[in-house]
Parts: sequence; structure tokens; C-alpha cells
Amino acid sequence: MGIVFVDVGVSLDGYMAGPNRGPDNPMGGRAMSIHQWVFECASFREHLGMKGGVSGTLDDDLIKRVFARSGANVMGRRMFDEGEVAWPEEAPFHGPVFVLTHHAREPWVRKGGTTFYFVTDGIESALAQAKIAAKGKDVRISGGAETIREYLDAGQIDEFTLHLAPVVLGDGLRLMDGLSAEKLKFEQTGSSSSALVTHVDYRVLR
Amino acid sequence: MGIVFVDVGVSLDGYMAGPNRGPDNPMGGRAMSIHQWVFECASFREHLGMKGGVSGTLDDDLIKRVFARSGANVMGRRMFDEGEVAWPEEAPFHGPVFVLTHHAREPWVRKGGTTFYFVTDGIESALAQAKIAAKGKDVRISGGAETIREYLDAGQIDEFTLHLAPVVLGDGLRLMDGLSAEKLKFEQTGSSSSALVTHVDYRVLR
Repeated sequence: MGIVFVDVGVSLDGYMAGPNRGPDNPMGGRAMSIHQWVFECASFREHLGMKGGVSGTLDDDLIKRVFARSGANVMGRRMFDEGEVAWPEEAPFHGPVFVLTHHAREPWVRKGGTTFYFVTDGIESALAQAKIAAKGKDVRISGGAETIREYLDAGQIDEFTLHLAPVVLGDGLRLMDGLSAEKLKFEQTGSSSSALVTHVDYRVLR
Repeated sequence: MGIVFVDVGVSLDGYMAGPNRGPDNPMGGRAMSIHQWVFECASFREHLGMKGGVSGTLDDDLIKRVFARSGANVMGRRMFDEGEVAWPEEAPFHGPVFVLTHHAREPWVRKGGTTFYFVTDGIESALAQAKIAAKGKDVRISGGAETIREYLDAGQIDEFTLHLAPVVLGDGLRLMDGLSAEKLKFEQTGSSSSALVTHVDYRVLR
């Protein structure tokens, strides 16, 4: 049985997305700079159907491992809505994705193995379905911030990796805001860095 | 000529101090857990006149280096007010400390080499005085959060070290809040970790 994990990039001031987000700019101002280290990695570019990038680096190996362990993804509706217009026809998940929504919709099959399933009966149901679909691999809670916080507060996350980028956004959407601190305990299990980012791994204790 | 640096611990959700701060609890709920790694280090305990702790570790060496490089400290009035009642008679700075305040007061000389100077004409003046007093060593902007942000926004910080603890506070006083992101650029220059904390060093670019 796989575990449930979060793997997410934040700015130095804790934002997942920048200020002035909107339909034309789903990540908000300057937020792409959080993920600069990702865009330079061959494994990520390959997943998006792009050429180039570096491979064999610590960062690239890390991305490769995240893709390899992810048997299914769970995401919030806003992340899906933003991605629906932004992702290429061959969506970058290459597996089942469970979307939390209030609007029932038939599964949406994309080229390259990604199928979006729309779940209207809550986060527990979405995670239960994702666990079955993952066939023993891990389930990734992809985002956005609110969805990650809901699963954290529900005690459903086993492992949490933070990619801390040397970028200040000043405003935007915080990853960690208003968490139930008395319920949440983290144990740091690993840490590494490259020029553009520091990666920190945590186990979420129950 | 020394440089100006910040060296500060934060929770995973970006807080320097926890919820419900008050005169009896200056750091707020659970915030001491941010600094657990510090309290276990012999160098820190020695500075506070306490016995025990471990030495020769990465964490302890790091604390030793911070004390050794600090020729003078600058702090905000609230941090001083809280410390005035909490620090031992032999205050833990062992050098000149410049306190930003609106209330003029004679220098306050403590045992062990700490003298507090009260500066009423602004952050630039306090820093200029600290640089002279540091006699070629570095100046540390000690805190609190507001004072650190003022110096960051004024472009006066050269180096910035963050100690990220695996602790969630949920609420409290954020270190980085409302910074002028368009002016601030960080370059990550180093990273290391022990079981209780990840240390990340940045150079602040002009």
C-alpha cells in the first residue's frame, strides 16, 4: 500500500502563488520564479512534452522520483480549472487524477494516460478512490494550497516535501495559513539543496 | 569592514513567534519549539550562563560562528522590552546592542560586556552607530520581525540565514509579511541540516 504525500514549492515568504492572480495569470505575479529549478530539469520538460533541460542532477533525480512514485493525483477544482486551459493536450500527469468539485462530470481522458475523474462527495472519497487507482503506488495531493491544508488538517498526509526557493513574492496565496497547529507534528527526515532551491522532507506525525 | 546580517529561526509556516503573545509569554504559544535545536547547543547555553548541551556538532559550530562574527547587535524596542525582563543579569550579547526606540535613555551597562544603547533617530542612525561599534566585525540585526523587515526593505541587509524548524504554529508573528518583493532579490549561498532544523544561507542582492 502506498502512502499519501505532498511535494510543493514555496517562496521564501511562504507563498505558492503570487499577487494579482487571475484567469490570464493563474499563478500570479513572479510565482513562476519559485519553480525555476523545475523548469531547468529534463525530467520535468519531458513530462510536459518539451525538449532540453539538464539530467543527472540532484534536482532532476528528485523530480524523476516524484513522478515514478505517483500512482494517482488529487487536486482542487481551482487548480484543475487553471490547468484545464494551460496544460498541453497530453496532460502532464500520465495517470489518474481525482478532482475535488461540486459539479459532476464524466471522466475526461487525455492523451498520454492522464484521466481526470470528478469527485463530488468530499476529500475522503477522493483520496479513497485515488488509493485504489494508484495500485500500490503513492498518492500525491497536488494542490492547490487550500486542498493541501484540508488534507493536512484531516490528518491524511504521510509525507511532505517543501521546495524552498530564494524568491520573495510579498503577497499572494500562502501554503500554510491557519493550520490547526495543535494537531500537526512534523519530523524532518531529509534535506538537500542545489543553487536554486532547498528541498526539505518531513514525515507528518499522527 | 564587516557586513550586516540576519540570523533567525522560523516555523514551517513562517512564524517567528506564536499566538497569544503577552508580557508573561513574549514568544507566544509553542514558539520555543522553533529554537529547540539552539537550546541543545553548548555554545548557546554557555552564552546564557547555562551548563550542559552538546558541542562539536554542525548546529553548535554554527552558533559559535554567529557569536564570533557579531561585533554589534541592533534590535527593536519590543524585543528589548521582552528581553529586559527575561535575560539574565549577564545579558547574552557580550557586546554593544543598539535599541531602536522613541524614548531616550542612558546606556545600560550589563555584566559580561553587554551595553544597550538607545537610539531615537531611526534605523539608519542605529546601523551607522553599530557599524562603528563593531570595529570591523559584522553587525547582526537581531529582531524582531518588524525590525528585520524594515532593514530588508531599506536594502541594508547583506546576508540572511534562515533556520527552518519542523514545527507548525498556526498563528502568530510572521517573519516575512508584506515585503517589497520587487526590490528584494535573494541568492541562496548555502544549506545544511541536522535532525531538528534546516539552515539556509542567502545573500541579499542589490
